[in-house]
Amino acid sequence: MDIMKKSIEMHGQHKGKLEIVSKVSLVDSYDLSLAYSPGVAAPCLEIEKNRSHVYDYTVKGNLVAVVTDGTAVLGLGDIGPEAALPVMEGKALLLKRFSNVDAVPICLDTKDIDEIVRTVKIISPAFGAINLEDISAPRCFEIEERLRRECNIPVFHDDQHGTAIVVGAGLQNALKIVKKDNENTKIVINGAGAAGIAILRILLQRGFKNIVMCDSTGIIYSGREKGMNPHKENIAHLTNPNKLQGDLGEALVGADVFIGVSVANLLTKEHIDSMNSDPIVFALANPNPEITYENAKKWGVRIIGTGRSDYPNQVNNVLAFPGIFKGALEVRATDINEEMKQAAVEAIASLVSEQELSEEYIIPKAMDERVALAVAKAVGNAAVQSGVSDLYPQLMEDEVVI
Amino acid sequence: MDIMKKSIEMHGQHKGKLEIVSKVSLVDSYDLSLAYSPGVAAPCLEIEKNRSHVYDYTVKGNLVAVVTDGTAVLGLGDIGPEAALPVMEGKALLLKRFSNVDAVPICLDTKDIDEIVRTVKIISPAFGAINLEDISAPRCFEIEERLRRECNIPVFHDDQHGTAIVVGAGLQNALKIVKKDNENTKIVINGAGAAGIAILRILLQRGFKNIVMCDSTGIIYSGREKGMNPHKENIAHLTNPNKLQGDLGEALVGADVFIGVSVANLLTKEHIDSMNSDPIVFALANPNPEITYENAKKWGVRIIGTGRSDYPNQVNNVLAFPGIFKGALEVRATDINEEMKQAAVEAIASLVSEQELSEEYIIPKAMDERVALAVAKAVGNAAVQSGVSDLYPQLMEDEVVI
Repeated sequence: MDIMKKSIEMHGQHKGKLEIVSKVSLVDSYDLSLAYSPGVAAPCLEIEKNRSHVYDYTVKGNLVAVVTDGTAVLGLGDIGPEAALPVMEGKALLLKRFSNVDAVPICLDTKDIDEIVRTVKIISPAFGAINLEDISAPRCFEIEERLRRECNIPVFHDDQHGTAIVVGAGLQNALKIVKKDNENTKIVINGAGAAGIAILRILLQRGFKNIVMCDSTGIIYSGREKGMNPHKENIAHLTNPNKLQGDLGEALVGADVFIGVSVANLLTKEHIDSMNSDPIVFALANPNPEITYENAKKWGVRIIGTGRSDYPNQVNNVLAFPGIFKGALEVRATDINEEMKQAAVEAIASLVSEQELSEEYIIPKAMDERVALAVAKAVGNAAVQSGVSDLYPQLMEDEVVI
Repeated sequence: MDIMKKSIEMHGQHKGKLEIVSKVSLVDSYDLSLAYSPGVAAPCLEIEKNRSHVYDYTVKGNLVAVVTDGTAVLGLGDIGPEAALPVMEGKALLLKRFSNVDAVPICLDTKDIDEIVRTVKIISPAFGAINLEDISAPRCFEIEERLRRECNIPVFHDDQHGTAIVVGAGLQNALKIVKKDNENTKIVINGAGAAGIAILRILLQRGFKNIVMCDSTGIIYSGREKGMNPHKENIAHLTNPNKLQGDLGEALVGADVFIGVSVANLLTKEHIDSMNSDPIVFALANPNPEITYENAKKWGVRIIGTGRSDYPNQVNNVLAFPGIFKGALEVRATDINEEMKQAAVEAIASLVSEQELSEEYIIPKAMDERVALAVAKAVGNAAVQSGVSDLYPQLMEDEVVI
């Protein structure tokens, strides 16, 4: 594949993609005396007196740690922390490119949950936020939960929430086209990993009542004998109001929406035929979706989204995370909470105007320069309004965020 | 002090000094597909197959973690990891400025030695080397020792070795001027902290036989009752061949060289008068030296070095660490060993030619652009020759390093 060869060449030529440069002049020894000894003692002492000054005099307020243990990298699985580094560098680039947020790759040589949590906490003083990346499920849930509780800076697992936010935005616009409401729309989510569960959560909060979740065993329902665990028991309680049982095929009968975060080439013509009118399909398996764009169109899917940039409606979390981090950092949020995530959904969806909205254009393009700032504003405002911004009082006084 | 105000202003204006930017083009979605999904999978898989490829396709080979726990920052003491961040950013800037090495500040929210060692090990996969910075003595010795043993990348505590290397270089040139040899020169080192001990070690390796070390209690000698510990007992065995006892004044009688890494305004006219002819004084206490340049000159010191940029002969470790890291990284050294440190001493000293050498010019200036590359070459060669370079065979074949 040409892109793979080109990528190897590009990575080899530059030896990685990141560079750490100075924002200040460093030409003569006077510059040195300001940036380093003896002048640097002045900001140090200010921060020692009042720790919140670290946001005024250092990079912390705009610096994200992109943290992985290398256990679930892209679709490649547990390839280890070194092999994960190109992805973490890429993530850092995207943050810089789309929202001017600086980011550093942190690749952890441990898979132990306690050690990961402790390590991230220990290195947190220099960072304004933590982006967890490519950590395998279900470990990622506990790691994120504990870090959110224990750190005083925002912690966000992009593989879960980034994807979920973009799916939420795309679905909102897709349902406008087919004129269906959230309450009565039947959704099948295939794949109960990190992304699937985050999608479920965000859709439940958005008022969807009829969601059926499937894993490789089939429909998840309370009391299923095979492949259950406490997480899935919990899912069963939150979903599947009609107590369906059986395989993915059973789940899809009469469904309005299919959301796949599973494996390639799963959906057949029969599956599509069994869905309700105007079927919507988000086939997000990477790099090969659950159904190809061509088959989906041929078999009558009305709106299709995939993870790919070479087809319409790319569900790409680059639409979400740069703006989310920027928004959270700008207001010194202590958390990225559900209100902020929902604000991101609305912001992304709203960038597609009624006039532009079509089957082939339900979400902004990945390179759309407007997205990050719109998301940042919405997320920053939501942080202030939901009370997780450290800048709350002064921001409310000004009635302007960011 | 004007420089302090200016520094605060500069740090506040830019919110820190570092920025993380892209080395590759990120204009269109094709660029994105190379740097991130799906193309990034290619270098990931290469590294998974052969972990050493991490040096070919990522930043690791040029990336240093500047690690502190904030316990001994500049002369400010234990100000905490947040307040240490401006210094760590400054250090990263200097690495970039003088040797084009990228560096990331890592400020640790723990003072526990085991946790520090474990944390640094866990985050090491993305880094090519570790620079320990501003960690208090004697904790820094154990931390560095354990990390050097346990990590497969070089670990270097600049406060110890950086200073020691530049002192070694300055002393070598100073002794040329006064025509004294290493073996018979009597040296008094005042201050038995991290820097003092490192200076002692490097001077012992350079063949100095008559070194007397003092701490705040006075001369360190075997069997001293007050303020001894195993470290100092060890020092006593390595130094003080004439079994001197007493205070700094006793130590200085007949001394050729005073090296202070202690406190301001310590040396009196009587001290200087009691020294041998052509006394050499390195008064490195910061920001105010053990003796002012003016007093030293007035009282007959022949050659004086300080830590200050506003006087001649600034002993500044920026002469050492940028080149040392560059050299170690270029040959993928697994350690920064004594041979490499001594090579750095020689390289720095040799940049002052016989013609240029004078009482006011024994070491290159901090901004001298030649230094980092000269040090890097010497250090890289020393790594290969002492067998700690991972690129050993091919480099020896080419007979060219860097």
